[in-house]
Amino acid sequence: MPEVFGDLNPPPRLLMGPGPINVDPRVLRAMSMPMLGQFDPVFTGYMNEVMALSRQVWRTENHWSLLVDGTARAAIEAILVSLIEPGDRVLVPVSGRFGQLLCEIAERAGGDVRVIETEWGTVFSPDRVEEALRRDRPKLVAAVHGDTSSTMAQPLDEIGPLCRRYGALLFVDATATLGGMALPVDEWQIDAAASGLQKCLSGPSGSAPITFNERAVEALRPRHHIERGIRPEGMAEAEGAQIRSNYFDLPMLMGYWSEMRLNHHTEATTMLYGARECFRIALQEGLDARFARHALVGRALVAGLRAMGLEIFGDIDNKMVNVTGIVIPDGVDGDRVIRAMLDDFSIEIGTSFGPLRGRIWRIGTMAYNCRKDAVLTTLAAFEATLRQCGYCAPPGAGIDAALAVFREPDAG
Amino acid sequence: MPEVFGDLNPPPRLLMGPGPINVDPRVLRAMSMPMLGQFDPVFTGYMNEVMALSRQVWRTENHWSLLVDGTARAAIEAILVSLIEPGDRVLVPVSGRFGQLLCEIAERAGGDVRVIETEWGTVFSPDRVEEALRRDRPKLVAAVHGDTSSTMAQPLDEIGPLCRRYGALLFVDATATLGGMALPVDEWQIDAAASGLQKCLSGPSGSAPITFNERAVEALRPRHHIERGIRPEGMAEAEGAQIRSNYFDLPMLMGYWSEMRLNHHTEATTMLYGARECFRIALQEGLDARFARHALVGRALVAGLRAMGLEIFGDIDNKMVNVTGIVIPDGVDGDRVIRAMLDDFSIEIGTSFGPLRGRIWRIGTMAYNCRKDAVLTTLAAFEATLRQCGYCAPPGAGIDAALAVFREPDAG
Repeated sequence: MPEVFGDLNPPPRLLMGPGPINVDPRVLRAMSMPMLGQFDPVFTGYMNEVMALSRQVWRTENHWSLLVDGTARAAIEAILVSLIEPGDRVLVPVSGRFGQLLCEIAERAGGDVRVIETEWGTVFSPDRVEEALRRDRPKLVAAVHGDTSSTMAQPLDEIGPLCRRYGALLFVDATATLGGMALPVDEWQIDAAASGLQKCLSGPSGSAPITFNERAVEALRPRHHIERGIRPEGMAEAEGAQIRSNYFDLPMLMGYWSEMRLNHHTEATTMLYGARECFRIALQEGLDARFARHALVGRALVAGLRAMGLEIFGDIDNKMVNVTGIVIPDGVDGDRVIRAMLDDFSIEIGTSFGPLRGRIWRIGTMAYNCRKDAVLTTLAAFEATLRQCGYCAPPGAGIDAALAVFREPDAG
Repeated sequence: MPEVFGDLNPPPRLLMGPGPINVDPRVLRAMSMPMLGQFDPVFTGYMNEVMALSRQVWRTENHWSLLVDGTARAAIEAILVSLIEPGDRVLVPVSGRFGQLLCEIAERAGGDVRVIETEWGTVFSPDRVEEALRRDRPKLVAAVHGDTSSTMAQPLDEIGPLCRRYGALLFVDATATLGGMALPVDEWQIDAAASGLQKCLSGPSGSAPITFNERAVEALRPRHHIERGIRPEGMAEAEGAQIRSNYFDLPMLMGYWSEMRLNHHTEATTMLYGARECFRIALQEGLDARFARHALVGRALVAGLRAMGLEIFGDIDNKMVNVTGIVIPDGVDGDRVIRAMLDDFSIEIGTSFGPLRGRIWRIGTMAYNCRKDAVLTTLAAFEATLRQCGYCAPPGAGIDAALAVFREPDAG
C-alpha cells in the first residue's frame, strides 16, 4: 500500500518574521481559478496585464516588466547572469547577507566582483559608493534595497545618478521592499530590479517580478541567442557570449513575453494569477497609502518594543519600515523565545544570519500582516513569552505605546 | 487613477493539448491552504512528506527526491548545470525539440555536447546509443523519455545498463511522462531525472520534481560549495569547480532539503502544497492503474482518429500513450482548426515545432483530462471542426470507434 499521508492541514500561523508572510486571501482566491494554455489569447492577455500592473508598482515606464518563474533569488540570478559577461567588473556594496548573496551569484556568473563593506546595521553614504565607482569602474553595480538580515534600507536616490555618471548599470534587489517602501525605479535611475511576492506583496514565494530599462536591453542585445529548436530560419546568431543559463536568459524571456510569444518555459499559470492579484491589491490600496501604512505600523511596533525596555538594532534612521531588529537582552535565550512564540501563540518571528545570528530577533510587519491587530497581538504574546523566558517588561507598556502611535492625529 | 483591470475570469477551457492541462480541483484546494514559514516544523514535515511521496511516484529508493522551484525546464537545468563541469563530454540523443533543448542547456553549462539524431517520429535503438557511448565516452547521457514535440517515447530500460557499462551517468527528462507512463527509476538504472507537474500529474507549472541517486551525489561531491553568508565556521571549501548557478546548485538544495535546513531560496509554499497533492492523487489511484488508464484512453483516441480517416504520426509502437500526433490532411489549414476548436468549443489542441510545425496536430490525454468524456467530447468537436474546415470524416465514426475501445472486456 502506498503511504500517502493525510490531507494538508497547516496550523493557522501569524507570520510576523522577515517573510514569507500570510498570503492575502484574495490572492489565494485568484490562484484557484481554472487553468489556461500558455498561448491562449486570454492567458497572453493576462500576461500583458501583469506587465501593465507591475509597471505601476515599480513606478516605471519600462516595457520589460515581467515575472521570472521562481523565487526572488531566481529573479536576481536571471538579471545578473544575463547582464554579466564573464570577466565583467561588478561592484557590490555589502551590508548584510543579501549583499553577500549578490556577490555569490555575480561570481558564479563569471563576474569580477569588487566589494565594499559596511558594518551590519549601517548603510553606505553616496560618497563611499562614488569612491568605489571611481576606483573600480564597474560595468554593473548590484545593491540590495532592504537587506532583511540587517534590517537596513540603503538610500538609493543618489546612487542611480552616480552610476550613470560613471557609466555603470545599476541593479537593485528589492525583494523585501517592493510594495512596502517607495522604490520609484525611473526617478531613481535604476536600470534593473528584482523582487518577490512573499514579503510586501502578500503572495506566496515562487513567482518573482523583474523590470529593466533600455540601457539594460542595450547591454543584453549582443547576447540575444534564440534556441535552435525555435529559431526562425535565416535569423542570424548573436555575436556576444552566450548567456550561461537557458532558464534565466532574459532575451529569451523577452521573446516569450513579447507579441512574438517565442516558446520558452511553460509559464506558471497559477503563480501568475497570484502575482496579478498581488499587484491589483497594492494598486487598489494606492502605493502612497500603502507605504504610509507600512511606516505607521513599523513605528508603532518600534514604540511598543522600546516601551518594553528593548533596544532596536542598527541605524534607526535607515531602518526598513517593514522589518525591525531587536537586540536580544543579555541572559535571554533567543531561540527559546522564538520557539515559545510559535508553540504557545502560533506566531512566527525570526532571528538573523552570520554576525547577527542569536544576537537579534526580527519582526516583520508586511502587506497583509501590516495591521494594527497583528502588531498588538504580537506585542502581547512577546511580552508574555519574554516573561516566561526571564525578561520582565513593564506590564502592558508595549501595547499602550503602540496604541498611542495608532491614535496620533495623523495616523490615518 | 491606477489601471487595475477586472477580476480574473478565465473561460472554462478543456486543455487537450500537449500540456499544461486542467489542474485537478483537489490540487487547487490544497494550494489554497494557509501559508507556513519555511522553517516551521510543520512545513519541513511537509517537505519530508513530499520527498517520501515523490520517491514512490518515481519508483526509487533515492533519498534525494525533491522539488525545484521553477518549471520543468528549471529542474532540467538544475541537474545539468550541477552535474556538468565545463569541458565534460555529454551525449544527447535527439529525436525532437526537447532533445535539442537538452543540448542547449548542456552547452550553456559548459558541456562538450555530442549529438546523435534520429528522424522526428522515430526512436533510438540501444545499439545506436551503445555505438555513441563507445565512440564518445561521455561523462553523462541526457535523454528525453517522452518528447511531446514528436510524440515519441524513447525506450529506456536498456539504456541505463549500457550507461553503467560505459561509465556514464544517465539523466532522463521525464517532464511529459511521470505519472502517465511507467518510469521505474531504480529498475531502469536512471541516475537522475526531472519532471514537471503540468502534464501527467495534473498540477500547475511552477514546481518541478527531481530525483538523483548516490552515483550522482558522488559526482556532485567535489562541487559542494556552501555560500559564504551561511557557511559554518571552519568548514573547508570544496575543491571542484563551483557550480555556475546559485539557484540551481543541487548540493545547496540538498542542504536545504536535509535536516540541516541550510537557508537557500524561500520554498514556494503554495506550489509545494500543490505538488504534494499531485503525488497523493497519483498514488491513491495506484501507479499501475494510472498507467493503464493512460494507455486505454490513448488507445481510444487513436482508434477514433483512425476511424475518422486520419493518419497517426510516427512510429506507433513507440508512441507516447498520453500525446497523439495527427498528420494534418492535405488542403486543411491546421492553424484554422486549432483556432476553431478553441473559439467554438473552448477545447485546446496543439501543433508542434520545427519540422512538424503545421504538419501535425497534437492531442494530449493526461492525468485529470485522461477521461472517457474528455476524449469523446474532443472527438465530437474535432469532427465538427474538421467539417467546417473542409475535411469530412464519416459522421460519428470517431466516437463509435473510441467507445468500442472503452467497451472492450479488459478496458477496466
